[in-house]
Amino acid sequence: MISFESDYIAGAHPEVLRKLTETNLEPLSGYGTDPYCESARRKIREAVGMEDAEVEFLVGGTQANAVVISTMLADYEGVIAAETGHISSHEAGAVEYTGHEVLLLPQKEGKILPETLRQYLRTYYADANHEHMTFPGMVYVSHPTEYGTIYTKAELTEISGICREYGIPLFLDGARLGYGLMSRETDLSLPEIARLCDVFYIGGTKVGALCGEAVVFTRGCRPRHFMTSVKRRGALLAKGRLLGVQFDALFTDDLYFRIGRHAIDMAQKLRQIFAEAEIPLYIDSPTNQQFVILENGMMQALAEQVAFSFWEAYDEAHTVVRFATSWSTTREDLDALREILQAVRGR
Amino acid sequence: MISFESDYIAGAHPEVLRKLTETNLEPLSGYGTDPYCESARRKIREAVGMEDAEVEFLVGGTQANAVVISTMLADYEGVIAAETGHISSHEAGAVEYTGHEVLLLPQKEGKILPETLRQYLRTYYADANHEHMTFPGMVYVSHPTEYGTIYTKAELTEISGICREYGIPLFLDGARLGYGLMSRETDLSLPEIARLCDVFYIGGTKVGALCGEAVVFTRGCRPRHFMTSVKRRGALLAKGRLLGVQFDALFTDDLYFRIGRHAIDMAQKLRQIFAEAEIPLYIDSPTNQQFVILENGMMQALAEQVAFSFWEAYDEAHTVVRFATSWSTTREDLDALREILQAVRGR
Amino acid sequence: MISFESDYIAGAHPEVLRKLTETNLEPLSGYGTDPYCESARRKIREAVGMEDAEVEFLVGGTQANAVVISTMLADYEGVIAAETGHISSHEAGAVEYTGHEVLLLPQKEGKILPETLRQYLRTYYADANHEHMTFPGMVYVSHPTEYGTIYTKAELTEISGICREYGIPLFLDGARLGYGLMSRETDLSLPEIARLCDVFYIGGTKVGALCGEAVVFTRGCRPRHFMTSVKRRGALLAKGRLLGVQFDALFTDDLYFRIGRHAIDMAQKLRQIFAEAEIPLYIDSPTNQQFVILENGMMQALAEQVAFSFWEAYDEAHTVVRFATSWSTTREDLDALREILQAVRGR
Amino acid sequence: MISFESDYIAGAHPEVLRKLTETNLEPLSGYGTDPYCESARRKIREAVGMEDAEVEFLVGGTQANAVVISTMLADYEGVIAAETGHISSHEAGAVEYTGHEVLLLPQKEGKILPETLRQYLRTYYADANHEHMTFPGMVYVSHPTEYGTIYTKAELTEISGICREYGIPLFLDGARLGYGLMSRETDLSLPEIARLCDVFYIGGTKVGALCGEAVVFTRGCRPRHFMTSVKRRGALLAKGRLLGVQFDALFTDDLYFRIGRHAIDMAQKLRQIFAEAEIPLYIDSPTNQQFVILENGMMQALAEQVAFSFWEAYDEAHTVVRFATSWSTTREDLDALREILQAVRGR
Repeated sequence: MISFESDYIAGAHPEVLRKLTETNLEPLSGYGTDPYCESARRKIREAVGMEDAEVEFLVGGTQANAVVISTMLADYEGVIAAETGHISSHEAGAVEYTGHEVLLLPQKEGKILPETLRQYLRTYYADANHEHMTFPGMVYVSHPTEYGTIYTKAELTEISGICREYGIPLFLDGARLGYGLMSRETDLSLPEIARLCDVFYIGGTKVGALCGEAVVFTRGCRPRHFMTSVKRRGALLAKGRLLGVQFDALFTDDLYFRIGRHAIDMAQKLRQIFAEAEIPLYIDSPTNQQFVILENGMMQALAEQVAFSFWEAYDEAHTVVRFATSWSTTREDLDALREILQAVRGR
Repeated sequence: MISFESDYIAGAHPEVLRKLTETNLEPLSGYGTDPYCESARRKIREAVGMEDAEVEFLVGGTQANAVVISTMLADYEGVIAAETGHISSHEAGAVEYTGHEVLLLPQKEGKILPETLRQYLRTYYADANHEHMTFPGMVYVSHPTEYGTIYTKAELTEISGICREYGIPLFLDGARLGYGLMSRETDLSLPEIARLCDVFYIGGTKVGALCGEAVVFTRGCRPRHFMTSVKRRGALLAKGRLLGVQFDALFTDDLYFRIGRHAIDMAQKLRQIFAEAEIPLYIDSPTNQQFVILENGMMQALAEQVAFSFWEAYDEAHTVVRFATSWSTTREDLDALREILQAVRGR
Repeated sequence: MISFESDYIAGAHPEVLRKLTETNLEPLSGYGTDPYCESARRKIREAVGMEDAEVEFLVGGTQANAVVISTMLADYEGVIAAETGHISSHEAGAVEYTGHEVLLLPQKEGKILPETLRQYLRTYYADANHEHMTFPGMVYVSHPTEYGTIYTKAELTEISGICREYGIPLFLDGARLGYGLMSRETDLSLPEIARLCDVFYIGGTKVGALCGEAVVFTRGCRPRHFMTSVKRRGALLAKGRLLGVQFDALFTDDLYFRIGRHAIDMAQKLRQIFAEAEIPLYIDSPTNQQFVILENGMMQALAEQVAFSFWEAYDEAHTVVRFATSWSTTREDLDALREILQAVRGR
Repeated sequence: MISFESDYIAGAHPEVLRKLTETNLEPLSGYGTDPYCESARRKIREAVGMEDAEVEFLVGGTQANAVVISTMLADYEGVIAAETGHISSHEAGAVEYTGHEVLLLPQKEGKILPETLRQYLRTYYADANHEHMTFPGMVYVSHPTEYGTIYTKAELTEISGICREYGIPLFLDGARLGYGLMSRETDLSLPEIARLCDVFYIGGTKVGALCGEAVVFTRGCRPRHFMTSVKRRGALLAKGRLLGVQFDALFTDDLYFRIGRHAIDMAQKLRQIFAEAEIPLYIDSPTNQQFVILENGMMQALAEQVAFSFWEAYDEAHTVVRFATSWSTTREDLDALREILQAVRGR
């Protein structure tokens, strides 16, 4: 059965796997101290255009969010996020598990509008009782968002400016960053993101790795003794090479960007196929996740031959579902989908 | 200066203080094992009409909320509350500090509507990915609410029914319970509240005590080894007598209810004074907290002679402020307020 | 029955209670912002001889320990304590509840020897893997200790020096500080303790108050936004006056020191009584807690007429028990004890 | 340079890597729901000889310890461990991070003696104040221990019996379980371990996998909604296949046991080499970790040509160091070591 269920249905991109295989027998030190981790850090610093950026590897996205947020916040602080942010809704309370509150903001297509943020902070500090409330100590944005949308350079610049005005760091969850960077509609480059954010991560799990997220701290924001804090959260990998080798491969010969580009190309074709089949988009996503509205009967029929993700009920008769592309999506998958859709519609 | 700043501006009700003084020299065991604690527990069980209710004393409201919620929730659970609930907004993240998420519901005048709760739970369990989300493990309501409003018997019965249908406990924050019970508009008695809730507390701090909240667990809901859990949260008072003696006094000769009644009477007169002065109510509160809308110039002038609480901006020219009554509010205070208002309006 | 069960068997010292009564009807702001809190802070700053010390009030000892330790430690740090320290053994894991490890040191009569501390820190930093271990981020000492012993000026000076050498704060748990300061054997004054420590507290609960501990931060060590951190731990008292008024009374006319002195005098007489009765001391305590070894039959007989605390088994036939004095111990209590002991021995 | 630095210096065992490669392109569901996870679970249930055992995969050892302990303990409980236990000393406070105390027991060669455990529990429950102390809620043993030693069947049976008598689960940290099972001196089989423990894990990271630990819950001990608890600790791997495929390979054709056997064989030869070189063992370890005492000058010289781990200072002139073998240790490595030792000694 062909699958568009997620962008993590396959193993590693072959170039990543090859590098794991080639280096498999080399004896290396653990915990991220090996030369592949060092090489990957150097290549990432180059890619983000910041010599003094500090790069740390973690295993997964929820882990990266919880570790970064809880090590950067002061005791009395919480993190601002869109109501639809991954940390707000789909991480089972991982941030709260670390003792910190997620302060929810209304959102538009998954994004925080700069004006909403500004208003929130202004109101908070105007409140005579704000010391009885959680201090806003960080802003979390996901890019691309959970709805596949992306911030424009103007939006991210304004959000970054507000953060700096209030002296709080801006954290960008880049679990799918590769797809945002390669979107045909983006005007944000990786160095610009690095310049505007205080910390962000370059997602590996959803962009061609078996696992792994590369967290980039800019402007001297890395918490002191970060490795110890990672260790005590159970997030320090003994064979750190697993992350180092993979990111070294991802940042060799632009692999990370080639993976992103391929998935975007596949997503564009996916949109054409839906358009041909007169299936409406739920949201206009310029990245690798495409949300469409399916009539329920059609959804059932389709689900027999294609894997995709249930998202949310649309109305009594329709459902929003998600199709995701990745490095492993092939033209053959798309051709097969087109045929299946024609057959299903023809019934 | 006369003060309506809060319901905790004075010390203890004189009958409470007298009992503290009378018993002061008796040597007593610590940690809630003394006979006054026992007596207070017995009187409270009688007042709530439940022989097998279990009563525990804690020092303050935020503490009671955090201790009750964190000891009753399972690891993977959070607590549902109105967006305006005290735990949601004005406890500086005390629930999150214990590692649990507060799941926010829209509200109406501070109350959760039963239909909103039902819809939330239905949608949650319908979500195919709900195991990636915090389980709703308890419902928190405040009664009276942060806006002075109260649940009707029908509403609380429906909410209780939904909780039992889903197998999750209902927790009622009664920091101001005395004022709810004595409201002229309530149709809920203390035994009815005990019957509908799984745990609730009878607030002392805001109803005549120096400090103290009496937590009542019904239906066998008290967590095992509760005292140890209280101890490790730094919430176990060495001189437990301080709480036992006070609640013993509050539940002797209906003092708790007399305090509530007096404050309600004072609040009714307060409403008349505002009506005479043509100052509009922000919300129609049947309890001891009255929220009014003041023109900003008038607010400034008034604040020079009367203490009250800033609540929130209403519009550019007006502000919502709160006046609270308590056992210590006197007719003289109200007469003085009437005169000050006349003078201020006459300018 | 006469009682030496603990130093918190009675209510408040009469001068404390009188001040609570006198101020009871004054309308005051909450949360520690009232003038009595301010006055108490000022008097304490004077008593410790440090104009820039910062004083904060908390309700109890375990709470004070957990709040101070968890707000001062960095994420990756733990607190060093003697194995017999209160936080190590009798607070039900309150420090661990805040997410931090207690690093245990061997002790002598309840005290950490400076050399033990120095050795621990030296070994820790010499370990090539110390980043996989909890960083020692604070030293906790209790004074008097859980065995009634006290640090000498030389010892505390050396411990303080080691802490400063390693850049970690020294925290002194003074739950019974009054008895340490008034011990006939001490050479440490309150200003000296303030000079040697970075944070300590002046215990109220066990030295004449109904509840309350005054935390003193020196050298600018108070954590930022401390009130919010206190609030989120459920430790912020609404009627802060309860703490402010009590400490204002305790630091008026040397009441705190008079209470300490009285209890020490009573403890000295207690020792004489035990000597007369040929009951051996378990430890040579110069403060208000006296530990003696009782033959088990005698212990049973005594317990019928006198309250004291079981401490630990000594051998098959003997038990260590504790007798504590306080402001409420009277000469009549001691005379009665002497007679009871004679009667019990005469059997 | 040849390396005996640890048992995780190489990547995955070739059979594991081959299976990862073979399955790499298959589209699979995430979060441990794929058929390889199912297959691995089934094979492990067979290997442990328990049809109703429940198997869950986690990424690393510290993570497995923290997740298992914190999900199985009640709020008021801590975990008993040897002072030298990995959770006690080398996980940077990961258990405490979850809010629970590690209750330390004296040890012998890394092991808890049954009598020590029994005495601890008896004393704890005899203490009149034990409700002010952390309840012992689990016993943690590592097998092999941090010193390479192993429990005998008699010892583990007795410890298990004590746990069952007190109604607390026994948790065995099997990060190096393969080496314990294949030790020539063990009398404990995998099914016996499963029968005696309530939860244990079969270490992958140190026994041939890139990462991964298989946690086995017996006797219905798996916590409810375990996946959600794993998720909120940031420990749920999106591409669960990475763990499933590896453990499927490890439990195919006895690979896990072959790996263990090989490392044990290599360790035996290592001991012979040390004996020949007259280098004394620090401890008599029957598993893959060998601890020897090196004269410091020799240690320096050796370190130029061989990687090993510093363990602890022995005396002024000697140091304890660790040599570890694994699947990747070769006869050539050992031959080279023998020659280097001869050369170094000949100087």
